[in-house]
Amino acid sequence: MRATVMYGAGNVRVENVPDPTIENPTDALVRVLRSCVCGSDLWPYASMAANPQGRRMGHEFLGVIEDVGSEVSGFKAGDLVVAPFLWEDNTCDFCQEGLQSSCRNGGQWGLSGVDGGQGEAVRVPQAQGTLVKLPVAEDSALLPSLLTLSDVFCTGHHSAVTAGVNPRKTVTVIGDGAVGLSAVLAARRLGAERIILMGRHKDRTDLGRDFGATDVVGERGDEGIERVRELTRGDGAHAVLECVGTRQSLETALGVVRDGGTISRLGVPQYEEGPMGFDTIMRNITFTGGVAPARAYIEELLPDVLEGKVEPGRVFDRAIGMDEVPDGYRAMAEREALKVLIQP
Amino acid sequence: MRATVMYGAGNVRVENVPDPTIENPTDALVRVLRSCVCGSDLWPYASMAANPQGRRMGHEFLGVIEDVGSEVSGFKAGDLVVAPFLWEDNTCDFCQEGLQSSCRNGGQWGLSGVDGGQGEAVRVPQAQGTLVKLPVAEDSALLPSLLTLSDVFCTGHHSAVTAGVNPRKTVTVIGDGAVGLSAVLAARRLGAERIILMGRHKDRTDLGRDFGATDVVGERGDEGIERVRELTRGDGAHAVLECVGTRQSLETALGVVRDGGTISRLGVPQYEEGPMGFDTIMRNITFTGGVAPARAYIEELLPDVLEGKVEPGRVFDRAIGMDEVPDGYRAMAEREALKVLIQP
Repeated sequence: MRATVMYGAGNVRVENVPDPTIENPTDALVRVLRSCVCGSDLWPYASMAANPQGRRMGHEFLGVIEDVGSEVSGFKAGDLVVAPFLWEDNTCDFCQEGLQSSCRNGGQWGLSGVDGGQGEAVRVPQAQGTLVKLPVAEDSALLPSLLTLSDVFCTGHHSAVTAGVNPRKTVTVIGDGAVGLSAVLAARRLGAERIILMGRHKDRTDLGRDFGATDVVGERGDEGIERVRELTRGDGAHAVLECVGTRQSLETALGVVRDGGTISRLGVPQYEEGPMGFDTIMRNITFTGGVAPARAYIEELLPDVLEGKVEPGRVFDRAIGMDEVPDGYRAMAEREALKVLIQP
Repeated sequence: MRATVMYGAGNVRVENVPDPTIENPTDALVRVLRSCVCGSDLWPYASMAANPQGRRMGHEFLGVIEDVGSEVSGFKAGDLVVAPFLWEDNTCDFCQEGLQSSCRNGGQWGLSGVDGGQGEAVRVPQAQGTLVKLPVAEDSALLPSLLTLSDVFCTGHHSAVTAGVNPRKTVTVIGDGAVGLSAVLAARRLGAERIILMGRHKDRTDLGRDFGATDVVGERGDEGIERVRELTRGDGAHAVLECVGTRQSLETALGVVRDGGTISRLGVPQYEEGPMGFDTIMRNITFTGGVAPARAYIEELLPDVLEGKVEPGRVFDRAIGMDEVPDGYRAMAEREALKVLIQP
């Protein structure tokens, strides 16, 4: 089959790789219908050291089950399913607590002999715990929105949940990428009435307004902080959803958060050290968030997607086939595309 | 009157200062019955730059009202009252939310013409919001425990509350100072059944056991982390109450916290930067806590103190008069005393 392999910064290829087969009785084989490129894929695309072995890419996909191992029950060939961006047994104590990202028997796509999502098929470990059935047909117009349950919509939801978003709280979202826009949508869905989106790409912030942003701040750094404070009586926002991952955006988050407020951090942080000094203690600032346990949220978010109450799939502004995957990476890295949908 | 003034590291004096008077109609005058030295006083005692003006010290006191301004209602001369370690109006929006530490009309003791608590009397600004009446006599044996409502018991409680301590969560408390021990007591009061105390002064950890610690770990650094992990199935604790404030103790906290767990930070951090990189994101670690809004908790904790259900005053292991205050600082700095009670 054909799959996406990254060999270093800027070096993404689509290659023939061995067809996956059932290796363990807990596996399933899934033919991929839709996959996509993630903002987090752009970090290695920008900086990965050359690696002649290459690294299989992609952690977001939905597809059709072709076969299941002997210990997988509740699924059969022909079922349409979505996979969260980490695989997990969904039964261990962490999973039971809703922290499937720390599953004792889980792991990442594309590592240790597990396929990546950006290919024609995937062997799914711990299939019974990992997969969630989707009650739609292969040609459903909802597929793009359903695919966001793999990662980006669940990730935005995780940030809103961990930041304690509710109707009484003012929210500031930092970043107008697909995760930031998903965070806006998730915050609105949880009832936030005042959502300030910090971003400067008009086409993206326009989508943010459609998703529920009430204010857009295009300025960055101190100027951006000043603007958000003006919009919040000088106090800042109760909940800040930091959807960029740089040290600068973390500092912006501290600048726009209200005393007693919460900063939820998402994505892959491009820093090791952060500001945690006297000021954060005096102001009772909470830092929370992290890698979303997407599996914990899929069933909860699915009905709203099926009913069309939310359309998180609007973050996809380009659809490509497998051949075009390298160009899809380029387009996202150059901010020509917001998020690229792959139809293998 | 006599009051405590610090002129620089190691330079604490008891001096004659002007008697306080009612300056604003929202003031009250309180004759101090009990005050104490705080662990946070030891930071300037260790490192304060020489200052010929001096700085009035003390932020924990209880006493008897001698006079009230014309706008103070509900209090009269003769009332026995306790003050939280910050003064506040207790009516602004932050106060209404329980974040009195960020009161719009509040401030710190010992600054801007406000007296410190380590003296014979205090002018209390925003007296109606700040003070809480205590239904005991001047000779009550409960005074030491009631004094801890000023700071140390409320601070321990704040750490346990913000860390989400409950009967289902394993707790690790880092530090066997008065705040650490108070955090143990607060965690036990909130129902925690497994409380691991990290500390290496046996007399203090013995008190910690009386307060509810089920395990004591005397090792520090990696060895201490290893021990806590052994005690928690290799996973670490759900709630870590970091009651030291150094960079090393923060790193220990990260080492002993369970995935998805919470680190509550107290006291005055002796660092500006903290570890907030990839590991904290992958593990969904929350950093919370901060300066306790003690005022928010006094009424809640008071009944248990009055009924003797908790005895937080056991952290005081030495009682002194005003003349001995400089020696009280020395004794605490040299860890000869855990916490020093002042009886002016």
